[in-house]
Amino acid sequence: MSERFSATYDIETPVGLDHAAAVLVGEQSTGTFVRLAAETDALRDRAAARVEEIIPTGQSGRPSLPCRLKGKTFDRGVVTISWPVTNIGPSLPNLLATIAGNLFELAEFSAMRLVGLDIPESFAAAHPGPAFGAEGTRELLGVSRDAMIGTIIKPSIGLTIDETAGLVDELAAAGIDFIKDDELQSNGPDNPLPERANAVMAVLNRHADMSGRKVMYAFNITDGIDAMARHADMLEKLGATCAMVSLNWIGVSGLQFLRERTSLPIHGHRNGWGLFSRSPDIGIALPVLQKIWRLAGTDHIHVNGISNKFTETDEVVIEAAKSVQAPIAGTRRPALPVISSGQTAWQVGPTINALGNQDFLFCAGGGIMSHPKGPTAGIAALRQAAQAARARRPVSDFSRDHAELAAAIAHFKAP
Amino acid sequence: MSERFSATYDIETPVGLDHAAAVLVGEQSTGTFVRLAAETDALRDRAAARVEEIIPTGQSGRPSLPCRLKGKTFDRGVVTISWPVTNIGPSLPNLLATIAGNLFELAEFSAMRLVGLDIPESFAAAHPGPAFGAEGTRELLGVSRDAMIGTIIKPSIGLTIDETAGLVDELAAAGIDFIKDDELQSNGPDNPLPERANAVMAVLNRHADMSGRKVMYAFNITDGIDAMARHADMLEKLGATCAMVSLNWIGVSGLQFLRERTSLPIHGHRNGWGLFSRSPDIGIALPVLQKIWRLAGTDHIHVNGISNKFTETDEVVIEAAKSVQAPIAGTRRPALPVISSGQTAWQVGPTINALGNQDFLFCAGGGIMSHPKGPTAGIAALRQAAQAARARRPVSDFSRDHAELAAAIAHFKAP
Repeated sequence: MSERFSATYDIETPVGLDHAAAVLVGEQSTGTFVRLAAETDALRDRAAARVEEIIPTGQSGRPSLPCRLKGKTFDRGVVTISWPVTNIGPSLPNLLATIAGNLFELAEFSAMRLVGLDIPESFAAAHPGPAFGAEGTRELLGVSRDAMIGTIIKPSIGLTIDETAGLVDELAAAGIDFIKDDELQSNGPDNPLPERANAVMAVLNRHADMSGRKVMYAFNITDGIDAMARHADMLEKLGATCAMVSLNWIGVSGLQFLRERTSLPIHGHRNGWGLFSRSPDIGIALPVLQKIWRLAGTDHIHVNGISNKFTETDEVVIEAAKSVQAPIAGTRRPALPVISSGQTAWQVGPTINALGNQDFLFCAGGGIMSHPKGPTAGIAALRQAAQAARARRPVSDFSRDHAELAAAIAHFKAP
Repeated sequence: MSERFSATYDIETPVGLDHAAAVLVGEQSTGTFVRLAAETDALRDRAAARVEEIIPTGQSGRPSLPCRLKGKTFDRGVVTISWPVTNIGPSLPNLLATIAGNLFELAEFSAMRLVGLDIPESFAAAHPGPAFGAEGTRELLGVSRDAMIGTIIKPSIGLTIDETAGLVDELAAAGIDFIKDDELQSNGPDNPLPERANAVMAVLNRHADMSGRKVMYAFNITDGIDAMARHADMLEKLGATCAMVSLNWIGVSGLQFLRERTSLPIHGHRNGWGLFSRSPDIGIALPVLQKIWRLAGTDHIHVNGISNKFTETDEVVIEAAKSVQAPIAGTRRPALPVISSGQTAWQVGPTINALGNQDFLFCAGGGIMSHPKGPTAGIAALRQAAQAARARRPVSDFSRDHAELAAAIAHFKAP
């Protein structure tokens, strides 16, 4: 009896939940629109998907998405489908082709979101998972207890290499733990990655020689496979400690390749995420996709932040961050959730309280650079906000004897 | 003055089209939510994106997607944004991070679809494009003029290797041009790719020895980079003539790698496509993504079919197929559109008429296997339908002296 993996979908359908689930099962395993003689019982026993659970959740008089099949009522529900692992073996791209393949466009559905994924331990164990995760990143950063503080080079694109290096110098002197390229900054002719890495690592290695602590810089090496390999090798030689990639565009296969190839922590950027998350009626939830990315080996995963400038609610953000910290099938390391988007000292405490821990990377841009007393005070204010949360004291109270935090909450608008 | 690439979006916004376009431009180039001193005029000249055109198209009293920003009216429009190529160089994954990155979730938008992409000739010329495309595939298949006829091994998953080889034998004897694995069939322990390829190619090489014409079989090699390379090499050694991949999961980087690595035509499967296409309010249109896939080197691209079992309208399907056949920036070969999904002899003529040519691969499953006189007649009926279209005669008329076509249109329901 083969082990099985299962996926859970939030669906809406004009044909009834039972029939819709049966269509999904057929389409994604042994069924065809004309029943074939070759679909024997033995074959079905080997390979057929199975409906595990159907939970009705509501009904509507009109379809949420345009739907070719008409209906008087559209039933909403949560259905769980399982497949034998032997259909695909423990292959991540083929897992996606099975659970997220040719199904979102079926005419029997007027909404479909992939919201859950369960894989057996043996499947998870076939993948390396993060080489560093939260704990390994903490060690590299030399931050023993509180949230790690990071920032993103801004403006996102257009700085010269000298300007970038100058900004990195300023941030390192100010006591930052982590800096990253913006996802728009890659390897363009105006700011080639090798030259940028050379200049930035010269600065960071110098600071490390003085302080004994090396700031982690996530260089965006997103590119073709050969270029990513070449650039990861170059980064290692320069003493860099992190490589960043755009997860959705290098693909799961590209990510797996990088995990095998490099000894650097991998900073996973989810740009394009709105395609999967923005609609309540189509898409994939982060708790699902982050499992794939973590199994493939990413160490850091962006999850947005509380009171962000995008559309995700705090609830969705926190659920995403928690999922990145949760175990997968009892195996593999947690990854490090990366909090960002319009973050200031105001959001540090609420993030800690919501997660129940400080094992995250808190990235602020303006929240550091626009602190009225400069970036050193900006970073100090964020650390003080984390100390306040650990001491279970409100920032308004804690800031009385912490001047940088006081200046931050006076300057930045409470979200 | 740097050359520029541009992207066109169908957007909806509560903040007015002009302001929304400015937000998009800022977010995807030099802007930040707190204006930084470093955003100098020189930097903006170098790297800023630019609004090229705004065309208002409508207005609504409520947002199409949940939107954090409130408004009394939501303006709909089509906006075109351009970027300097020097921001990224001719990198496809980084092009996607720029035109399809952190923008779909911006709070200023209640709908956003990426519907157009223009790149300069120099950008296109930096990529190989399809090695075979429509013309090269035609040559390999030995089909000189009419539409190429293909099918998909069904049931999708669960057949043994012997059963698969038996079906391939039957289809080859019946005169098929092309056969493909279903995207659910990859390299699972119940049907390992190497053994399947061995068995299938033994059959097809035998038929080729007799007929002088080798049926093309697209083996699904979707997997990690190393496995894809190993399997592509294996296929070449076996005399196979096509490798299939799940484009969305191996990523653009994975596709580029494969194009460099193998001399086989690449059959691009777009499973997961509904995530990008299903909602009128979020996603990416196929004419955009197919450009990326073609530049990276895929030879065949799935575009669904007329009167399909999914939700796409015929108009969308035909627009997609035409885009795959259109030139890109005056350079690189067209790819071959793959028509499939509930296709029978009824849809051949309308497809030819809509495209104005027969340079496509027409894939039918039940439409061949369920022909009342068997698969040989099923394939003959499809070829006769193509001949009828070329002769500009309706199938009802042409079928009078073409028995297989007559049986097909009597048996299969007109869509």
